[in-house]
Amino acid sequence: MTDATHDPARRSWVPGADRHTDFPIQNLPFGIFSPNGSDRRGGVAIGDWIFDLREACAAGLFNGVADDAALAAAGPTLNAFVALGTAHRRALRHALSFLLDSKGEGRACTEKLAEKLLHKAESCTLHLPCAIGDYTDFYAGIHHATNVGTLLRPDSPLMPNYKYLPVGYHGRASSVRVSGPAVRRPNGQRKRPEEAEPSFGPSRSLDYELELGFWIGPGNALGQPIPIARATDHLVGLCLLNDWSARDVQGWEYQPLGPFLAKSFHTTISPWIVTAEALEPFRTSAMARAAGDPAPLPHLADPADQDEGGFDIALDVLIQSAAMRAANRAPHRLATSNARHLYWTASQMIAHHASAGCNLTAGDLLGSGTISGPTHEECGSLLELTRGGREPVTLPGGETRRFLEDGDEITLTARCTRDGAVPIGFGPCRGLISAAPP
Amino acid sequence: MTDATHDPARRSWVPGADRHTDFPIQNLPFGIFSPNGSDRRGGVAIGDWIFDLREACAAGLFNGVADDAALAAAGPTLNAFVALGTAHRRALRHALSFLLDSKGEGRACTEKLAEKLLHKAESCTLHLPCAIGDYTDFYAGIHHATNVGTLLRPDSPLMPNYKYLPVGYHGRASSVRVSGPAVRRPNGQRKRPEEAEPSFGPSRSLDYELELGFWIGPGNALGQPIPIARATDHLVGLCLLNDWSARDVQGWEYQPLGPFLAKSFHTTISPWIVTAEALEPFRTSAMARAAGDPAPLPHLADPADQDEGGFDIALDVLIQSAAMRAANRAPHRLATSNARHLYWTASQMIAHHASAGCNLTAGDLLGSGTISGPTHEECGSLLELTRGGREPVTLPGGETRRFLEDGDEITLTARCTRDGAVPIGFGPCRGLISAAPP
Repeated sequence: MTDATHDPARRSWVPGADRHTDFPIQNLPFGIFSPNGSDRRGGVAIGDWIFDLREACAAGLFNGVADDAALAAAGPTLNAFVALGTAHRRALRHALSFLLDSKGEGRACTEKLAEKLLHKAESCTLHLPCAIGDYTDFYAGIHHATNVGTLLRPDSPLMPNYKYLPVGYHGRASSVRVSGPAVRRPNGQRKRPEEAEPSFGPSRSLDYELELGFWIGPGNALGQPIPIARATDHLVGLCLLNDWSARDVQGWEYQPLGPFLAKSFHTTISPWIVTAEALEPFRTSAMARAAGDPAPLPHLADPADQDEGGFDIALDVLIQSAAMRAANRAPHRLATSNARHLYWTASQMIAHHASAGCNLTAGDLLGSGTISGPTHEECGSLLELTRGGREPVTLPGGETRRFLEDGDEITLTARCTRDGAVPIGFGPCRGLISAAPP
Repeated sequence: MTDATHDPARRSWVPGADRHTDFPIQNLPFGIFSPNGSDRRGGVAIGDWIFDLREACAAGLFNGVADDAALAAAGPTLNAFVALGTAHRRALRHALSFLLDSKGEGRACTEKLAEKLLHKAESCTLHLPCAIGDYTDFYAGIHHATNVGTLLRPDSPLMPNYKYLPVGYHGRASSVRVSGPAVRRPNGQRKRPEEAEPSFGPSRSLDYELELGFWIGPGNALGQPIPIARATDHLVGLCLLNDWSARDVQGWEYQPLGPFLAKSFHTTISPWIVTAEALEPFRTSAMARAAGDPAPLPHLADPADQDEGGFDIALDVLIQSAAMRAANRAPHRLATSNARHLYWTASQMIAHHASAGCNLTAGDLLGSGTISGPTHEECGSLLELTRGGREPVTLPGGETRRFLEDGDEITLTARCTRDGAVPIGFGPCRGLISAAPP
């Protein structure tokens, strides 16, 4: 599945775009940015720089299918680009790799335009890569589902449906934001068990959830399911996703129709779409089923997906409190996990989502569900780490946390490493908690 | 609250736009249509005709704020129009009423342009009035929640939260369609209690749900709640909504995160936005609380909303099977209900939705939840009418139904009548069930 764009010998002439970055020439993720307050356009992260697709189009650097793709990616969103599908995206990736390669024939014409084509990432504003039509959040992290289920139902933590279908629910698209802006603590109705009535006020148990996001394109027509063997045609790429959750609001509101305001106040994603192509070297088998687990029903079963439908992506959760910032303490790692711990693959989620006829559209976003690992150090939320708030974690400096406090900053990171491949990352997914509205 | 646009003496010069229509001059609902295969633009239903807002703008028929509003409504969606808010919408309504009034000074200049301005509705295609950003479905019909809860939990049908907050969940925006296109029976995972494992196939218990839709504009910024006293500023108008539901799929998939594929395969709405202004004469008090019911918490309490936050809208559900069509039998009324049976008002749903900081955006759609009344004849779904499929209903001609069969057409209708007011309607919300994909 790998090709020249993954060649570990390939280096970029862009200064600093070497192996000590999330964005070497082997990555080439797509996003939407504004350089220095200018208008939104498509770009590609390379080292500490952003390569400007609109300027590159204007300079005539692309041909044929790659040029069509770059024009569609010129902005202000990538929806038209992701709607084109895999062949266009792959052609543009190849053209970019050729133009940015230190030894390629494309270097000469590109490097002399560098001042126009390259923007220092720190001087740019990043935006949502697509206007999100619909956002769906799955629940495919089996260790998370088990941990949370155990808090509620120690004897039968997983629902009977869990191993037959990827459980998911519709989320809120309007409140998805890229890494950066403050996350306002929500007000909401909460009721402690000993209270007779609920009250309305700031959430007392604000949490993060470590997830991956799957960007969708081109999608399907209403009433036309996507066969599992074709599901990868609709996976554009991945991002990190923090599904902020107000546990007290969730506990009171969620019966019988599921999470609502406990989740919809804000969702943070990392701004770059790390493409399915860039992730090819880091594909792995789907999670092995345990003895006694049911085989997937036919519409969710695909041998190729079982062989290479998973992703080997190491994930970290970092916290830095206001006191830690004031004391110049570095962010503290709360947990480490890996995308291998997802029970269902991205293809299974896509095929399931469309199986009843629901139309997926270019620019839709799917969340994986919280990705916890089998050990306590791999818990993807505070709810799990602190066992429902009963066992606080201690931070450097001696503070403790049951749930998040105002001023806490949570950062999710992702890193792909494998023998023979240049490591790639996703860039940070960051949000700092601010006080609830009065 | 009423003004000259509601004057029952006012008649339109448009032929047939008299009192025997859903769309007299007192209604003036907004929508998006294409005349004879031409491109999409904004229009207003008047009798059997559609008044073309783009042509009216081009002819210079509007001034000032009304002209700004009509320009924003020119198409291809009404999102920019509903984002302008109440004052603009009201100004355009007044201008239209003046232009279409048989005795108004605007008649002369308008009627001579009638050939350009008016299209026979039957020759036009109707579209979604807005590109729906997010669709949320509430559960505010207390009789429905009680009926459904009784099937599952006879002793405590309503959840403890029900009377404290308007329970709702995020729905699927991409699969909302206007009245007309066939509704394809979904495939899905279903499991009968006596079966050891689920199987995948066509839903065996397809149902309709009688709901109202609330169109939202302008909306709020992320993190900025909408006080209940300002909620009406964000209610553009209403439509009918059929929340098609696959009960067997729902029963298997919905724990613990709520309805997903059982609902997202298709949602049908009536195409016209019947404005909050047109509905002013049909406002009524919110549902009276029973003894022992909790008072709404402060963020959901507003005396004005209690006095006139409800709507008196009579609702009907009609069915016509393939056999009935073949025998030329008229559609049969399955149920009749009224919007007065909603426990929560539109303002309470809007204020609640934004209370944790979630941003509502212009063109969002909220569903009310199924509107059943207190008697069995007022059940808004087959699940309730047939008591979970146990007591089939008999159709004219002798057929029976536990749930919907292929070929069945369901039509929802709405009618507002009140002494001293000209009755208005919504137009039909119609969908015919077609067979599941192979």
